[in-house]
Amino acid sequence: MKKVLSIFAFLMLTVSALNAQELTNFAFWGNQKPIISPEITQDSVTFRLKADYATVVKLSGSWMENPWFGTIDMKRGENCVWEVTIPLPSPEIYTYNFVVDGVSVNDPQNVLVQRDGTRYLPMLLVPGERTENYGEANLHGTVSHPWYHSNILGMDRRLTVYTPYGYENNPKKKYPVLYLLHGAGGDEEAWISMGRTAQILDNLIEKGLAEPMIVVMPNGNPGQAAARTLNIPEKPIDWRAPENRDLYVKSLCTEIVPFIEKNFRAIPKPASRAIAGLSMGGGHTISASILYPEMFDYICPLSAAGSATPEQIAALKKAGVKLYFLACGNTDFLFQGAEEMHAKLTEQGLDHEYFVSDGGHVWSNWRLYLNTFAQKLFK
Amino acid sequence: MKKVLSIFAFLMLTVSALNAQELTNFAFWGNQKPIISPEITQDSVTFRLKADYATVVKLSGSWMENPWFGTIDMKRGENCVWEVTIPLPSPEIYTYNFVVDGVSVNDPQNVLVQRDGTRYLPMLLVPGERTENYGEANLHGTVSHPWYHSNILGMDRRLTVYTPYGYENNPKKKYPVLYLLHGAGGDEEAWISMGRTAQILDNLIEKGLAEPMIVVMPNGNPGQAAARTLNIPEKPIDWRAPENRDLYVKSLCTEIVPFIEKNFRAIPKPASRAIAGLSMGGGHTISASILYPEMFDYICPLSAAGSATPEQIAALKKAGVKLYFLACGNTDFLFQGAEEMHAKLTEQGLDHEYFVSDGGHVWSNWRLYLNTFAQKLFK
Repeated sequence: MKKVLSIFAFLMLTVSALNAQELTNFAFWGNQKPIISPEITQDSVTFRLKADYATVVKLSGSWMENPWFGTIDMKRGENCVWEVTIPLPSPEIYTYNFVVDGVSVNDPQNVLVQRDGTRYLPMLLVPGERTENYGEANLHGTVSHPWYHSNILGMDRRLTVYTPYGYENNPKKKYPVLYLLHGAGGDEEAWISMGRTAQILDNLIEKGLAEPMIVVMPNGNPGQAAARTLNIPEKPIDWRAPENRDLYVKSLCTEIVPFIEKNFRAIPKPASRAIAGLSMGGGHTISASILYPEMFDYICPLSAAGSATPEQIAALKKAGVKLYFLACGNTDFLFQGAEEMHAKLTEQGLDHEYFVSDGGHVWSNWRLYLNTFAQKLFK
Repeated sequence: MKKVLSIFAFLMLTVSALNAQELTNFAFWGNQKPIISPEITQDSVTFRLKADYATVVKLSGSWMENPWFGTIDMKRGENCVWEVTIPLPSPEIYTYNFVVDGVSVNDPQNVLVQRDGTRYLPMLLVPGERTENYGEANLHGTVSHPWYHSNILGMDRRLTVYTPYGYENNPKKKYPVLYLLHGAGGDEEAWISMGRTAQILDNLIEKGLAEPMIVVMPNGNPGQAAARTLNIPEKPIDWRAPENRDLYVKSLCTEIVPFIEKNFRAIPKPASRAIAGLSMGGGHTISASILYPEMFDYICPLSAAGSATPEQIAALKKAGVKLYFLACGNTDFLFQGAEEMHAKLTEQGLDHEYFVSDGGHVWSNWRLYLNTFAQKLFK
C-alpha cells in the first residue's frame, strides 16, 4: 500500500493526462489528510502543495513587488506537503503559482482560476472593502455566448452577454446596455474571467447601486471569431492599416449594437447605451465615440491610448454626452496620454470625470474602474 | 501548407506575446523564432516547449497505452526549445502535458484546453472521421448559463444551456430538449469542455443529421451551486443517504424541466424530452426514468451503474418510450452492469438499442455516444 501511495503521489505531481472521471479507484485517497490551499485567516494566507520528489519549491504571486524574481521559499512538511504562510496582502484579486524545481505550476487545490490567453492562473481573493463586489452575489445574472454575423469582418463572431438577475422573469422590461471592450491579447471572455464582470454587476445590482443593465463583451480582435479558436485566413489582413483600422469599431456600432437591440430587450436609445474599454478597448471606445458621436451617452476609456481633435470633442458635446469617464493608473505607461486627453477635454469644455488610481496597466485597476463607473450609468 | 503554417506561427506568437495584459515589456520576444506546438502533419505530430534551464523534458499523452509511466523523451534543440515528433495517433481528442524535470506543465502554445475539475489540460484534436463533428462548425448555437432556483436543494444553481443556430431568428419556433448529465467529478461545464457538446450539436444540426434541439446541462452535485465555486454548508448533507439520494433527480424533473419550459421555447411534451447521462449521470438518468416514467420518451444511460425492476421497466414500456439507448465500453469497469441491464430490458421486452464500443470509462466514448444518439432523437 505504501508503495502504491507514493507512486500515486508521484503521478499526481507528474502526470495529468488522465481525466479524474477516467480514474476508477479513489480508495487510496481515503487515508490522506485533505490539503487546503490557499487558506486565508484574519491576517495571513497559507499556500500548500504536495510535491514528493521536489528539491526546491517556491511561491510567486502578483502581490509581490517583483513576482518574476521575488519568489518565496516553501518548506517541506509531513507527507511532502510544502507550505508557506505569509501576511495577508491588502484586499484585491491576485494571481499566483508555485515554482517546483524551477518549473511554474498551478495550485491543484484552488478552484478559482482565471484565464489570460493560454495561461490559467490560480486566483487569491483577499476579502475587504476593495473586493466586496468581486465574489459571488446571492442573485445571479445570466452569462451567454451568442454569435453575430459580421458582413464587415466576413465571419460569424462570438459575443459574451450578461443579462441581469430578473431578465427572464420580467419579459416586458427593457434594459440599458453597456458595451465593455477588452485590451490587446484579450478576447470576449477576458472581462468575465479576469474582470469579474458578472460578479461585480450581480453585486452592484443586488445592492441597488447600479441600474439593472445588459453588458455586451465582444471580441475586439478583428481577425478572430472566438476565444480559444484559431482563424487562419488565406490572406491575412493587416488590421493596423488605415483602411482596416476601424473595421472592428464599425462592426461594433453597425452590426453588434443592432444585433443586441434585436435579440435582447435593449432600449435602443443613446441615453441607454454606454461604451467602455481598457487599453486597446479604450482606443476602440474613443474611436467609436468619434465615428458615431450620437450613439453612446456614456463613454468610458480606461487606461487608454487615444486622442480626439477639438472638432471631435465638440461633436460629442453637441450630441449631449451624459458621462465621460476617463480613468488611468498613475504609474500606467499610458498615463501621459490620459493626462493629455484630460487637458484636451477640459480645454474644449466637455464635462468629464477624470479618475486617477494608484498603480499601472493592470486588472486590479480595471475591476476598480468597472465597479466605479457602473454605478454612474443610466441614472 | 508552408504559408498556412507560418501564418499560424505568427498568430500563435501574437497570442502568446500579448496574452499577458499586465506585462508591459515584450521587447525580448522580438528576435525569437515563434514556437508551434502541437504541429500536425499528414502522419505525425510535433510537440515543442521552450525550457531554458530544464535537464529532462518528457511528453505524456492520453493516447499512450500507459500515460502514467510511458512518457516520451523530448530533445533539446536550438534556443532551448525541446521537441519530439511522434506518429499521429488515430483520430480522437487527446489530452497531453509536458513533464519538465519531473513536474507536469501545460503547453503554453496551445489554445485548445479542456477543464476537468481544477485541472486544465491541453487537447490534441487529430482530424478524421471519428472527430469530424468535434471541431468548430460554420454555424454556431448559443451557450448560456442561466440560474434556476431550487427549493428542494435550497439554493440558486447554475445551468449550461445550448440553443441551436437559428433559435434567435425563429422567435415562434419551439424545440425539443435533451437533458444531458455529467459524471462524478464533473459539473455543468463538463459536457461543454470535455464533451464538445456545442461543437457536436452544431455540426450534426448543420449537416441535417440531428434535429435542432435545446441541450440542458445541469450541475449534478446536489451540494454545489455552480462549477468553480465552493459551497461549504454549515451542516454538510450526506447526499448518499436514502432520504437524500434522489433529491437532485427530483430537482431536475420538477424544477429544472419546468424552468426550461418556462424560460426557453421548449416543447413541453414527453415526445420532445430526452435524458442522457454518463456514469453517475447515467445513474441519474435511470433514476429519473424510474421516478418519472412518463416524463422522457428518450432515455440514454451511458457507461452507467444502475438497475431497474421488472415493474419499473414495465412502467416505461407502458409510458411508450421511443428510444432506450444503453451504451458502454467493453473494457469499462461498469461493463458487467450494462450487460445485466441489457439482459433485463430484453427479458422484459423493452425495445432498446445496446451500443457497445471499444474502450473504457473515458470521454472518447462519451463524445462518440453523444454523436451517435443525438442523431436518433426526436425523429
